[in-house]
Amino acid sequence: MKTTNKQTLLAAALVCALAFTATTARAAEPLPSWNDGPAKKSITAFIERATKPGSPDFVPVSERIAVFDNDGTLWCEQPLPVQLYFALDRVKALAPQHPEWNATEPFASLLKGDLHAALAGGGRALLELVMATHASMTTVEFERIVKAWMATARHPKKGKLYTELVYQPMLELLDYLRANGFKTFIVSGGGIEFMRPWAEQVYGIPPEQVIGSSVKTKFEMRDGEPVLMRLPELNFIDDKGGKPVGINQHIGRRPVMAFGNSDGDREMLEYTQGGSGPRFMLLVLHDDSAREYAYGPAKGLPDVKLGAFTSALYEQAKKNNWTVVSMKEDWAQVFPSEKKPATATGVTNPHRKSETKKWR
Amino acid sequence: MKTTNKQTLLAAALVCALAFTATTARAAEPLPSWNDGPAKKSITAFIERATKPGSPDFVPVSERIAVFDNDGTLWCEQPLPVQLYFALDRVKALAPQHPEWNATEPFASLLKGDLHAALAGGGRALLELVMATHASMTTVEFERIVKAWMATARHPKKGKLYTELVYQPMLELLDYLRANGFKTFIVSGGGIEFMRPWAEQVYGIPPEQVIGSSVKTKFEMRDGEPVLMRLPELNFIDDKGGKPVGINQHIGRRPVMAFGNSDGDREMLEYTQGGSGPRFMLLVLHDDSAREYAYGPAKGLPDVKLGAFTSALYEQAKKNNWTVVSMKEDWAQVFPSEKKPATATGVTNPHRKSETKKWR
Repeated sequence: MKTTNKQTLLAAALVCALAFTATTARAAEPLPSWNDGPAKKSITAFIERATKPGSPDFVPVSERIAVFDNDGTLWCEQPLPVQLYFALDRVKALAPQHPEWNATEPFASLLKGDLHAALAGGGRALLELVMATHASMTTVEFERIVKAWMATARHPKKGKLYTELVYQPMLELLDYLRANGFKTFIVSGGGIEFMRPWAEQVYGIPPEQVIGSSVKTKFEMRDGEPVLMRLPELNFIDDKGGKPVGINQHIGRRPVMAFGNSDGDREMLEYTQGGSGPRFMLLVLHDDSAREYAYGPAKGLPDVKLGAFTSALYEQAKKNNWTVVSMKEDWAQVFPSEKKPATATGVTNPHRKSETKKWR
Repeated sequence: MKTTNKQTLLAAALVCALAFTATTARAAEPLPSWNDGPAKKSITAFIERATKPGSPDFVPVSERIAVFDNDGTLWCEQPLPVQLYFALDRVKALAPQHPEWNATEPFASLLKGDLHAALAGGGRALLELVMATHASMTTVEFERIVKAWMATARHPKKGKLYTELVYQPMLELLDYLRANGFKTFIVSGGGIEFMRPWAEQVYGIPPEQVIGSSVKTKFEMRDGEPVLMRLPELNFIDDKGGKPVGINQHIGRRPVMAFGNSDGDREMLEYTQGGSGPRFMLLVLHDDSAREYAYGPAKGLPDVKLGAFTSALYEQAKKNNWTVVSMKEDWAQVFPSEKKPATATGVTNPHRKSETKKWR
């Protein structure tokens, strides 16, 4: 009996000791894919203040809410947002059942391969595309379609799966915040049910922490089975002023940290900053045409139709003390699969490798 | 150095040992306010199957989602739902600013003290009451009003704070499920922002796990401050077929366990049962006029306008193998403040006392 107790204690002690070691090792070098510089320093300094008991900027664990935009903040959104490629592929797949599309825009141009003409209709054309491809099926059917597509569809320029084009520094940031007691949420203009099927595996963010745009759904019994039908009717647009609305609806607290990359995230960052106590806001500026894309039009970078980071937003960021990340300067590595160039110290970080394994 | 290591290990071992002891003590007698009987047994048997690795009914931790109706399931909803008393008190408080209410229903009857006449207008009258009292202010202002009211308003018959009229057996059930890896959610027809300000303290359920009915909100800058204005416009009714819709919108997974008490919960239980794998559904039947209220009309109990448990629902529960709790037979104690009658064994349970302390 006594020996057993001793053995149990010893085993328990070892488990605890290992846990302590792991925590320490992790705390030793957070954010290994971030270059040492003002952006990385602003993050780690904030986390130190927010988690240090007795600090004037201490944030209780229950209030540690961090919100992340998805397109352009956690993964690549150029040359077009991923969900748009999904919609285009769905149009092609569904075309045989819709002969009328050959004479209706935006479908006709799309089926002829003229993406530019198809999207000339702007928001209205986009909406029609989404409704034709994202609705009139059950939520379970839609989830299956998204999963199958994400497992095979590839980025038109980089040839990789879209889930391989997530940003390694942001994966590390998500992990770092969670290790410091933060609950991480996605708050995206993208479809809530387009992100949920893969967000947990790729980002470690469970479905109930994903907020996005949505169509209306309706409960009904179909062949005796209770299902939710996706209706071809907009429910909510989680962009711009919609982001604080979505945050309040889903989370019910004001975030302490907010991360974005475009004008669509402005109100989310404003809302986050509007709370009392310490707050942290960050925007990613895509200025790296070599490793990813370069677009603004802030700082004279090329303009884009979707995902623009305007000069006005850049001025607001400077004025409001928001951190702006230069992808080129602040990120030692962009994508998980990249060969990392030799660092100054030449040390390989085992943590990053395990991260890479995790999201695959 | 060696001594310090040893001391650290010993301290760690003690911490672990204490943690193990606490877990064991807790596991020894779950649900102390539940009488031993088929209802309690159905719950504990399900949890054993769902959490036992290798069991055919094993549920992975990430899928352990349990949803609870609030009114009549977690707290007392008679003679009227609590939120209605809140609305009535708000009408009285706001009346001086609304002289027109003296000539407009449902306000006029209400201000004369004729509750019956005020509610004769049915759903439409209710909606007008809610819009006049729950909107046209910021979310922060509304939260402050709810908190102040909950801290002082008392049940018209029992004279207690409403948060004292939560069900002790359900508090224990929430704790028991969480101790077994379940994430607990409220899914209520009540207002989402009416519940969030106190649900964490009373039930241990954080704001982001509260789902309910809502008004639309709008982001705006007011005197340079970013706020969300509550608009006098319905956004979502989280009742009946709306419950599965709300669950999908907020959680994005099908629950494994669902708890309710009235016809408004039928679709939530159907939707829960519709998933593959093991599922558990439960309804509370209020048949205890001595300690709480007795209403159905199921089983010949008195009928009620709000919160009815119909005979059709009772038949469906029997047919679908849903557990029906008889408040009278299955609950040894109803409210936390009750003096518990001597049990068969005469043992006082320390766990229940700590529970009581917690929710106050």
